[in-house]
Amino acid sequence: MTEIPGGGDLSQLRRLNALAAIGALRGEPALTLTEIAGRTGLSRASTEDVVRELLERGWVEEVAPATGTVGRPARRYRFRADAGRVLGVDIGGHKVLALVGDLDGEVQHSARVAVTPSMGRTARLAAVDRAVREALAGSGTPAAGVWVTGVATTGLVDGVGRVMLSEALPEWTGLDVAAHVGGLVAGPVLVENDSKLAALAESWRGVARHAKDVVFLLAGLRTGTGLIIDGKLHRGFGNAAGEIGALPAAGWTRAPGHLRSWPGGGTEEGTRGTGSGTGSGTRGPDAGGDPDTAMEEVFRAARAGDRKALTAVRRYVRDLAVGTSALVLTLDPEVVVVGGGFSRSADLIVEPLRRELDRWCIRTPEVRVSAFADEGVALGALRLALDHVERGLHNPGEIAAPESFLTGGQFKAR
Amino acid sequence: MTEIPGGGDLSQLRRLNALAAIGALRGEPALTLTEIAGRTGLSRASTEDVVRELLERGWVEEVAPATGTVGRPARRYRFRADAGRVLGVDIGGHKVLALVGDLDGEVQHSARVAVTPSMGRTARLAAVDRAVREALAGSGTPAAGVWVTGVATTGLVDGVGRVMLSEALPEWTGLDVAAHVGGLVAGPVLVENDSKLAALAESWRGVARHAKDVVFLLAGLRTGTGLIIDGKLHRGFGNAAGEIGALPAAGWTRAPGHLRSWPGGGTEEGTRGTGSGTGSGTRGPDAGGDPDTAMEEVFRAARAGDRKALTAVRRYVRDLAVGTSALVLTLDPEVVVVGGGFSRSADLIVEPLRRELDRWCIRTPEVRVSAFADEGVALGALRLALDHVERGLHNPGEIAAPESFLTGGQFKAR
Repeated sequence: MTEIPGGGDLSQLRRLNALAAIGALRGEPALTLTEIAGRTGLSRASTEDVVRELLERGWVEEVAPATGTVGRPARRYRFRADAGRVLGVDIGGHKVLALVGDLDGEVQHSARVAVTPSMGRTARLAAVDRAVREALAGSGTPAAGVWVTGVATTGLVDGVGRVMLSEALPEWTGLDVAAHVGGLVAGPVLVENDSKLAALAESWRGVARHAKDVVFLLAGLRTGTGLIIDGKLHRGFGNAAGEIGALPAAGWTRAPGHLRSWPGGGTEEGTRGTGSGTGSGTRGPDAGGDPDTAMEEVFRAARAGDRKALTAVRRYVRDLAVGTSALVLTLDPEVVVVGGGFSRSADLIVEPLRRELDRWCIRTPEVRVSAFADEGVALGALRLALDHVERGLHNPGEIAAPESFLTGGQFKAR
Repeated sequence: MTEIPGGGDLSQLRRLNALAAIGALRGEPALTLTEIAGRTGLSRASTEDVVRELLERGWVEEVAPATGTVGRPARRYRFRADAGRVLGVDIGGHKVLALVGDLDGEVQHSARVAVTPSMGRTARLAAVDRAVREALAGSGTPAAGVWVTGVATTGLVDGVGRVMLSEALPEWTGLDVAAHVGGLVAGPVLVENDSKLAALAESWRGVARHAKDVVFLLAGLRTGTGLIIDGKLHRGFGNAAGEIGALPAAGWTRAPGHLRSWPGGGTEEGTRGTGSGTGSGTRGPDAGGDPDTAMEEVFRAARAGDRKALTAVRRYVRDLAVGTSALVLTLDPEVVVVGGGFSRSADLIVEPLRRELDRWCIRTPEVRVSAFADEGVALGALRLALDHVERGLHNPGEIAAPESFLTGGQFKAR
């Protein structure tokens, strides 16, 4: 049987009552027993039971009584978001970013380690180790105190946390990411594609948080996508949703060639049209350095009025818009969110993209720019971990957790 | 307040209990009170209450006691699917098909009236009137006995049953389909796009009934799509999901040109490549006759080994596969279902389509052929009506029903 630390031998019904009480307390400064009973629909007796149990387990604490009331004030309780810790890790081509959060998803500490796309597997994993250690140390969290970890990686990920295929980091294909990170911390480790998790972050607390259907673009020399459908991350039958970029007709394999060709001036135009083959006309981003950053020169030149740079950006956006239109026409989302490295150049991309979408789409959605800079992917990984904590409260029998989670014990918060 | 006929003044809780009891009884020959209580989790007293109420309302009836039991046998009850009637209508370019079904969705009677794509609005509506009248008469259903009607039409449909845009039937654009059909029968009238409803039918009782994520193709001279995501029909923010065919790069605007060009022999090849413009290289299907049927000649010739016809079909499938790959790469569905007029030629289409998908897609889904012949769209319309009946039981306050529904009275079944 799987347990959230501190979950002990709660019966299913008592768990549901506990979850209802936590749901009522979350986001409130403090509530009285009467208020908790009123919001959950639980009887007074059940409310007292469940709050006593949550107090014992450290999930809830009593706060100082309200002042200024006449007579003996009622006891008030609040949810202790710091009763547990979750970890979110973004393993990318250019950085590893680790975030430690509390049970409300508030980031307690973050740690960043620079890496390169051409770096080998061992060196990248060493960077992961360092970022995780620094984030835990900075937040005063022991490795055994991590309830659940979410990890973002480039490429297609299978159901147990292995990378099935990574084109951006070829040496990454086949790696058991969950097993490696599971050696660093207690608790289950969940692994998911970076674009999917960045979409989750936008839906959670980003620019798409009020939208049910969202197309997210992780825009860089490679374009990734994450889809939120009916408020949930859409993974697909084989966890391979959002891979429109693999279709040559979608234009995404040739799109970055226009930027790379600068200052050559549009010589990539000749590679357009047939679209037979994957990635023709583009060079891999692991050719050295940080290509997304190198591309900033094109954007800078365009911003300064360089005509060839402007042409390169225009052609890039035109090709980006074809695949984006395919996504939009398929799903009819409320909003398209542009994130990733190129979102730093949103001033040059968003308006032309909107115009191109208007050209192809039956209903042009809003286009918004991510506000997460380069932390969206890691935030999404944190959300993935929180989702697991909440599922654990809802359906304790449904989650298969590694042994380390069962024996990890409860993290004693400060 | 909105009521399902016979719903009367049931409180929300008693409605939920009634729904639970109906859910338990549905699909069973008969159940005793003890069995109903066991399956619903209701107390014996609540079960007795709810069954008595359902008996009074005519939704449930007592059946003859089981024979061969010792002592006085327990009373047994069954759901009366014939307590109400729903209507499903498919208004197409070539036919109008009306189905009358019971509350289990079993078709009681169907009526078909031939129409043509070039027929004007008035003549098509007269055909609708005739098909509906014949279906009602054939099933012994008075117009006031129809609880809910689902209508399928070509084109984009707005939220209140008007056609926003129909390219296949230009004279159809702007028509208030719900208002017209609402004049023929009692009860709410819901209108939806034909491809979406055909997808719903496949998910309900067709070849995709066990799949969560489904891409449905209504394949003909025009290709329409319906998407089932996480078990539900995906409509999109503006009810415009599945319109990938509008994107020239998806190949669907040029695909039928290959078939039309036969026996000219591949002269349409010259229209490939640029894809700038909508529908270039294709003629409207309302040029006269039944073009989907005319295309059967190409398929027949291909089946007989005619090389030019084989080339035309191969090129058609190659273009069909580009847009289909865009849908598959976006959603990663478990299954692609081929329905519509061209599904009659599935022997020539499915295997080449599968091979082309294999070429472009990261994970190639199963490809299945609809088994509904040309009745899938109407079945989906029937399902749309049944969904409304069931929503009415779940959330009586959420549904806005026209006055005719409230005053229509309860249909007295035979």
